[in-house]
Amino acid sequence: MADAPQEIEALIDMMARLPGLGPRSARRAVLHLIARRGQLLAPLAQAMQAVAETARECLNCGNIATADICPICASEARANGELCVVEDVADLWAMERAGVFRGRYHVLGGTLSALDSIGPEELRIPRLLDRIEAENITEVILALNATVDGQTTAHYIADALEGRVRVSSLAQGVPVGGELDYLDDGTITAALRARKTL
Amino acid sequence: MADAPQEIEALIDMMARLPGLGPRSARRAVLHLIARRGQLLAPLAQAMQAVAETARECLNCGNIATADICPICASEARANGELCVVEDVADLWAMERAGVFRGRYHVLGGTLSALDSIGPEELRIPRLLDRIEAENITEVILALNATVDGQTTAHYIADALEGRVRVSSLAQGVPVGGELDYLDDGTITAALRARKTL
Repeated sequence: MADAPQEIEALIDMMARLPGLGPRSARRAVLHLIARRGQLLAPLAQAMQAVAETARECLNCGNIATADICPICASEARANGELCVVEDVADLWAMERAGVFRGRYHVLGGTLSALDSIGPEELRIPRLLDRIEAENITEVILALNATVDGQTTAHYIADALEGRVRVSSLAQGVPVGGELDYLDDGTITAALRARKTL
Repeated sequence: MADAPQEIEALIDMMARLPGLGPRSARRAVLHLIARRGQLLAPLAQAMQAVAETARECLNCGNIATADICPICASEARANGELCVVEDVADLWAMERAGVFRGRYHVLGGTLSALDSIGPEELRIPRLLDRIEAENITEVILALNATVDGQTTAHYIADALEGRVRVSSLAQGVPVGGELDYLDDGTITAALRARKTL
């Protein structure tokens, strides 16, 4: 496409690399931004600049924050001995939206994967082991995705922590509002095995 | 969501207003950007700033450019007497990608719409009439969308230009690679009426 000016082509190319956008929708988004360059494009550029300058990973847990230690790690109220292990920051945000967990988090930054040669050292696992004593953790809750890699990682961490601290994981079963007819066999099997007496 | 820092929340809110992104995909895109803040977020912020400062509408045709007159209007080679009328800049880019039209463009900036009280003055129609003489236009090609508003606008322009210049419009018919079974009745009717002798 030699028809749009070079600066605009460069912007479209970068936008097209965002997840959820392709070349076509990036072009649409950029035209939308240019049509609103005063109210949306310039403020968006400034907001991105501000985040680029201030966002960093919490040195303790790996959460995204604007300080070296994130607000959750900095809050004494959340030092209740519970540590929730998640795969990435999006999962931490999902847990926080549920608003039910009052302890601290530990963001692994991925899952173990022999195929991609991601071992414990590539994740934040050594730091997790250090935190158990440093923060008097009494229970580690594994909130990893119910995928093969997620569950492999959960087993590895459970083994590494055995005998040192109580380790639990999120319950598997029927999601709220879920209809049996639409659930996969694995979920129904898990829900039946973990059935509760009423 | 009180869990992400304020700067990041602000960025997510703005990204969620882009066409093709919602709150969920905006959150994902922002996390993707933060994870690549050196290689992607900072350059993207700069690219947006550059476009916000330089992008403007061509005073002659309404194309997006970085100068007061866009390269197409500035090029003498494209002053061949043909003027292609399009609804918006995305349509101009689509025409340019096809690479077959060698004349100049005129971007209306929308279509006539009684419902939204958009009349000829709200579009770039008076400027179109001025250009016919100023640029010695011999043919106006209406490349408007095949929608009700697009066709209403085409009829209005054809009436306004009657007797002054040759007016044509894009052919309607079966798209290249199109299968009859998937085409609507209107397209098949138009293609049959405009059938060509082989």
